[in-house]
Amino acid sequence: MMDIIKLQGKENQSFFKELKKRTTVDFKDYEKPVEEILEAVKTQGDAGLLEYTQRFDGIDLKERGLRVREEEFDEAYNLVEEDFIQALRRAIDNIRSYHERQRQNSWFTTSEGIFLGQKVTPIARVGIYVPGGTAAYPSSVLMNTIPAQVAGVKGIVMVTPPDREGKVSPGVLVAAKELGVKEVYRVGGAQAVAALAFGTESIKRVDKIVGPGNIYVATAKRAVYGYVDIDMIAGPSEVLVIADETANPKFVAADLLSQAEHDEMASALLITTSEKLGMEVREELIRQTQQLERRDIIEKSLRNYGKIMVVEDLKIGVALANEIAPEHLELCVEKPFELLDAVENAGAIFLGHYTPEPLGDYFAGPNHVLPTSGTAKFYSPLSVEDFIKKSSVIYYSQEALRQVKEDVMTLAAEEGLTAHKNSIKVRYEDDDK
Amino acid sequence: MMDIIKLQGKENQSFFKELKKRTTVDFKDYEKPVEEILEAVKTQGDAGLLEYTQRFDGIDLKERGLRVREEEFDEAYNLVEEDFIQALRRAIDNIRSYHERQRQNSWFTTSEGIFLGQKVTPIARVGIYVPGGTAAYPSSVLMNTIPAQVAGVKGIVMVTPPDREGKVSPGVLVAAKELGVKEVYRVGGAQAVAALAFGTESIKRVDKIVGPGNIYVATAKRAVYGYVDIDMIAGPSEVLVIADETANPKFVAADLLSQAEHDEMASALLITTSEKLGMEVREELIRQTQQLERRDIIEKSLRNYGKIMVVEDLKIGVALANEIAPEHLELCVEKPFELLDAVENAGAIFLGHYTPEPLGDYFAGPNHVLPTSGTAKFYSPLSVEDFIKKSSVIYYSQEALRQVKEDVMTLAAEEGLTAHKNSIKVRYEDDDK
Repeated sequence: MMDIIKLQGKENQSFFKELKKRTTVDFKDYEKPVEEILEAVKTQGDAGLLEYTQRFDGIDLKERGLRVREEEFDEAYNLVEEDFIQALRRAIDNIRSYHERQRQNSWFTTSEGIFLGQKVTPIARVGIYVPGGTAAYPSSVLMNTIPAQVAGVKGIVMVTPPDREGKVSPGVLVAAKELGVKEVYRVGGAQAVAALAFGTESIKRVDKIVGPGNIYVATAKRAVYGYVDIDMIAGPSEVLVIADETANPKFVAADLLSQAEHDEMASALLITTSEKLGMEVREELIRQTQQLERRDIIEKSLRNYGKIMVVEDLKIGVALANEIAPEHLELCVEKPFELLDAVENAGAIFLGHYTPEPLGDYFAGPNHVLPTSGTAKFYSPLSVEDFIKKSSVIYYSQEALRQVKEDVMTLAAEEGLTAHKNSIKVRYEDDDK
Repeated sequence: MMDIIKLQGKENQSFFKELKKRTTVDFKDYEKPVEEILEAVKTQGDAGLLEYTQRFDGIDLKERGLRVREEEFDEAYNLVEEDFIQALRRAIDNIRSYHERQRQNSWFTTSEGIFLGQKVTPIARVGIYVPGGTAAYPSSVLMNTIPAQVAGVKGIVMVTPPDREGKVSPGVLVAAKELGVKEVYRVGGAQAVAALAFGTESIKRVDKIVGPGNIYVATAKRAVYGYVDIDMIAGPSEVLVIADETANPKFVAADLLSQAEHDEMASALLITTSEKLGMEVREELIRQTQQLERRDIIEKSLRNYGKIMVVEDLKIGVALANEIAPEHLELCVEKPFELLDAVENAGAIFLGHYTPEPLGDYFAGPNHVLPTSGTAKFYSPLSVEDFIKKSSVIYYSQEALRQVKEDVMTLAAEEGLTAHKNSIKVRYEDDDK
């Protein structure tokens, strides 16, 4: 179970280094087989896709076809609970409403003879990878699709691996249908990434690929990066809870466990000003873990990457959080809004005693695709921003350019670029006559 | 000199493929020596930096020191023209004023018992790489530093290689000083990137590294990516001019040449509805090239990556431009604003006959760090956005969470994550009693 330590100085640096090292996945072992798959799909198109689907997913899709048919979406609705559909719809409303606030407009500014602006255009076509099997998460469909839709992306295509009967997770299909995504292909793995990046007879190539996947998918995304854009390659998940003596140990333990159950590399950390709370949380962790289905994963995760740290005051706690830059940060303290300003590095910040992290995973509205393993120092949650791009716009009138021509020529000359200078000069050669 | 071709169908696809291939730099040959340099600086700190600076830049900095001293900035002012300083100041005003419009604010929204928001925080510390020698461009200092300053980045540090006497380009120092950047180190190459990424006794590590550099610098940036963030690795530069019969062939030729002089891989393309203009531009290219200093580079660039394409109407021209997604797009037509809406993919768009691309390189205000080689389909110009990151913020009251608890638990259960479900459940266990 988790250590409890009292932090004085820098004594825990080695643990923090271990935490960061979790991301250093070695892609090298996977590069060669992935390269082969990419090349096969690039050159053979659908034939390559079908071949690798047969080999890896154990299903021949020649009969059934790559694209999910209309009636399969309808069937999916019969395979899920009505409660789930209703909950999903309310989640969609919340997520859409939050992301709509991220929308950016083109803008311009003018002064005499000058027009400057920034034109916002959605990316034309985006591919969303949705894992299959036990990792087929409808919430992942929502979180990757909705920002693209709000951004105005017209072409949204989804790929997800088939089971041995060629079927696709009903939860995923229902989520896709609720969002109005109609183009879904039952392919997964590196072969699906190849189809999205290069295109095949059935699947038109995209400009950007997003969504989580296993090591083959991640390696393939890295390999096609440059041909197309990709989202960040997510590392293992983590939560950091900062708690004072007002926190409820039962709640804190439950939140730490909800992170630890993700996988053995997940990290759950508690920083508290109350040693008493730290000890109570530890007891609760032991008690609650016994009742949880994914207890084996949880025990390994807590043992290797869990830690309870006791600090003197909340200020030190927040400073430490900024150093760790966690994916999820919970402020389980009496006055969480008073700490908010000091938080600099965190993917998502959960305030107070009734804002557990899973609320954000599914329902509240903000995106659950967040920077992991300390990258919150420079990355942001997935957002509408990731599905648009901008063009600068410049217009100068003849007279406006005349006013500044000497300056531009001086700067070009200083850099030794005479053709740059010349492009201004030719426009006013007649002035001097 | 450049070909003139009449476009009918898809006949030019192979040329466009060649254009895109320009970016496929093979970093592999450089990875091993760069890895060695990174490791040496990581383990030896300043000693490693000094050693590699001696080896590659031919200067022992033990006496002179790594950091540029106050009096060196003053000396630099004596080595540049007063005209240059004045032009630089006016450029800074324009660039700052444009980028200030990109600033984003934190926002929040509330409803009963719920507070959702997005907190914007500048990246804490940024390193700017400025090349030395003939590629020491003061404009590059402005374009990389100003957006970071407008974003609110507190720690801005600059590195730039020394000459054989240990001195740094005066234009670069003047630009740094005008912007108030005080922390400048005379180191370059992969060793400078290593110092920024890992830190040494003299140079504190940064969170993000931006700025152009040679193949060693680019390879080093790729290698440290993940420890720190980096900007995009820029490919060769390109301009696409769309011109109708109102365009002046002298102006168009001069603009194409200003792009071609960058390097042999640079691409200058003209799409025109007027075959007559195409032929006149071709004549002008030949005439003007003779008068230019960088004629050797220009001739190679035009021969390999230059092309004049005649199309039937402007609509076809813009569609082709969207496919090419050029770094710079000039609309040298009678009514450029009427074409603007149809432009989807371009780094920067220059409208009309008096907005040559070099105006944007130096002076107008928008950033000159732009997506190259077709990546404008998914990337944007360097902006304030690149120097901030966002955190989602969520607060739910006890009552607000109670209202939605069933939905969250239903969604968690559907995904088989029972500890997620449990984190909601524990908060309301007493409700049921």
